[in-house]
Amino acid sequence: MPRDATHDPAILSWVESANAGGTDFPLQNLPFGVFEQGGDARVGIAIGDRVLDLRAARDGGHFDGLDPALAPAVGQRTLNALLALGRPALAALRGRAHRMLSADTPEGTRARRDATLLLPNSDVTMRLPAAVGDYTDFYASVEHAMNVGAMFRPENPLLPNYRHVPIGYHGRASSLVVSGTEVRRPLGQTSAAPAGPPRFGPTERLDYELEVGAFVAGENPLGTSVPIADAESRIAGLVLVNDWSARDIQAWEYQPLGPFLSKSFATTVSPWLVTLEALEPFRVPARVRGADEPAPLPYLSDATDRERGGVDISLEVWIRTPAMRAADAPAERLSRGSFARMYWTLGQMLAHHASNGCNLRPGDLLGSGTVSGVERGERGCLLELTKRGAEPVVLANGERRSFLGDGDEVSIRGWCERTGAARIGFGECRGVLIPAAL
Amino acid sequence: MPRDATHDPAILSWVESANAGGTDFPLQNLPFGVFEQGGDARVGIAIGDRVLDLRAARDGGHFDGLDPALAPAVGQRTLNALLALGRPALAALRGRAHRMLSADTPEGTRARRDATLLLPNSDVTMRLPAAVGDYTDFYASVEHAMNVGAMFRPENPLLPNYRHVPIGYHGRASSLVVSGTEVRRPLGQTSAAPAGPPRFGPTERLDYELEVGAFVAGENPLGTSVPIADAESRIAGLVLVNDWSARDIQAWEYQPLGPFLSKSFATTVSPWLVTLEALEPFRVPARVRGADEPAPLPYLSDATDRERGGVDISLEVWIRTPAMRAADAPAERLSRGSFARMYWTLGQMLAHHASNGCNLRPGDLLGSGTVSGVERGERGCLLELTKRGAEPVVLANGERRSFLGDGDEVSIRGWCERTGAARIGFGECRGVLIPAAL
Repeated sequence: MPRDATHDPAILSWVESANAGGTDFPLQNLPFGVFEQGGDARVGIAIGDRVLDLRAARDGGHFDGLDPALAPAVGQRTLNALLALGRPALAALRGRAHRMLSADTPEGTRARRDATLLLPNSDVTMRLPAAVGDYTDFYASVEHAMNVGAMFRPENPLLPNYRHVPIGYHGRASSLVVSGTEVRRPLGQTSAAPAGPPRFGPTERLDYELEVGAFVAGENPLGTSVPIADAESRIAGLVLVNDWSARDIQAWEYQPLGPFLSKSFATTVSPWLVTLEALEPFRVPARVRGADEPAPLPYLSDATDRERGGVDISLEVWIRTPAMRAADAPAERLSRGSFARMYWTLGQMLAHHASNGCNLRPGDLLGSGTVSGVERGERGCLLELTKRGAEPVVLANGERRSFLGDGDEVSIRGWCERTGAARIGFGECRGVLIPAAL
Repeated sequence: MPRDATHDPAILSWVESANAGGTDFPLQNLPFGVFEQGGDARVGIAIGDRVLDLRAARDGGHFDGLDPALAPAVGQRTLNALLALGRPALAALRGRAHRMLSADTPEGTRARRDATLLLPNSDVTMRLPAAVGDYTDFYASVEHAMNVGAMFRPENPLLPNYRHVPIGYHGRASSLVVSGTEVRRPLGQTSAAPAGPPRFGPTERLDYELEVGAFVAGENPLGTSVPIADAESRIAGLVLVNDWSARDIQAWEYQPLGPFLSKSFATTVSPWLVTLEALEPFRVPARVRGADEPAPLPYLSDATDRERGGVDISLEVWIRTPAMRAADAPAERLSRGSFARMYWTLGQMLAHHASNGCNLRPGDLLGSGTVSGVERGERGCLLELTKRGAEPVVLANGERRSFLGDGDEVSIRGWCERTGAARIGFGECRGVLIPAAL
């Protein structure tokens, strides 16, 4: 029996579609997002195939008795004001939504009679959950770092800092787009020879990267850090991320300051922020360090983080090419992955990020970096799957992909499942490539 | 005789301090900034030792007849709305301010009688000019790249991409601070040996970086580029930037994804945005490529950019240590520099940035990277000046500095001067280091 009623798989919703086995959004999930209808953007919670309009719920008095600061925050056009209130406020709101959407509560009986509360998911357009002040991308899968390192430095695949530092870098916030947004193939400088000369044109090595993203709640003032024990209190929840990458541009530009235009043309984010509260039943121990691996430094070390720092999320990447669409063939899975085996936990990434006094603001987004596993079918990008294009993926219709082609649609899916808990899904992180602008 | 009256050095202001020889803010400058008085932030223009309150000017009818879109924009608490209107709107506003502040115009006669318009600079607190959506830092001084490269790769100081690619990377927007803000010495991982093991503690190699920053005007939609011929139409103006750097943290963390926590603890920005209009008399040819240097690729090549892509800004870095303050000794100059000899122009940096379709938004900040010259006295950071600490700077009082000490104050100054033009100054970009939080 779960301690928290919001995790209890036996509690049903009066929204019938939320009780269907395969839904990403059962009563136990209740992720936050921003939807738009008729040009009016509002904050909502996904439930089955419906969206709960939080502004309408507030106006209908359904949030009476909660922290009064929530009332203006749910009236905003992004989640930032809610995220600024911190995790406890979001948890209280989710708890109230749970009672409102439950089949057998007084709040549920009242909400069921209020016709203003729910909209069909199919009637709304989703937006990015938050206005992202800063987007940081980590590199937290050691398998990804090893696979990529082996291509560029076969004698020395993993750099000496990797097992000590949760490596990350600043990404581009302006080009974050919500799932469903078309992604234009970028132009850029590429060079066949390592010493140049380069040419300028459309990338020929367009790749996806399977990632999980964390949205920041609350704010630490500039000059103050966040102890590892408090780090998760600063993470509101998770989304799926596709950090599109132009590998040929990247190879030519990235020394000495890191990836830049090879990444900044687009990063796709799934629209529903799945809270750490909803993910509570799926927490697992952090990856155990091997005997040959150093212990994390004390500022990255915490007993609770070791015991529960992992999140067991199953991930998949699917592709659908123009030829598949023309033949009415379904999408095909390129890879699977698991978020449970990341080398660094979310808490370690956040604590490291703030360890120099960097202020993390509500709505900031932290990407995990490509999630890869040890098996070939667990490599989270084409660079790894095809060994830099040398071993193309062969699709069921005979098409080959070393890298992505124009018109290809890439979808990331993610979910959590285990016995005794309701399945929690992330929805979809999807993008279709459109040809370069020439 | 200048074609544009706003450049005419013979026109005087009725604000007496604007006519003094040494002022940074004569009638020919008129930079934009955001000031705060009694908690109320407003947009202003610097004139001598005064600030023109643009909201008050609007309310007093002084902007009547200008683009009506300016009226709400000058009522904001940042420059972003003004920057969104684009360079022509800013230029029109500056032109009107010029007539309002001129001694012999009808607009000047009227403004002089309006007691609501001017505040003493000493009565206001300056803020960052804009809410910066994304901060990008370039690496546009080849002398800096050579000096730093020689320390890390003596056999191969300049990487093969440098003369083709305006190298840049994403910086941290949240930790941008306005001149005068205290900067806390960051903690971080450092390692004496290249292979580790690291320790965690206060940086022992805290450095400044002398840079010039450009604020973006207007917006290109995601997926569209900005031709080099149009690139300067997207730059509103320039500021001074100190991109504080922790060299020991940087050396350990920066492979393979670039600098991260070694930079993200603070970046100081001067408060007054000096418009490209004001800098018009100081435009110089772009750096000429040598016979052994490749021509820029066509997307970075433009006749006007070659003829006028440079800006002849004189720069200086000054230090004042706690011992100097205790002895009431003045600050001491560490280095001089010139922005005229940068390898890449501002237009090339912006065109490159958008060449992959990356959307640049109003208020985005582009840093030039450290401005260094060929002489020892022109090296724009201590890493270069002291050769990684091996040759400490000796100050007049006998103190030595390999890197910065707690309590050290670093000030960057910048100005443009030439015969037949009024001196245009940038004000100050200043920060005092405070001890690490332990």
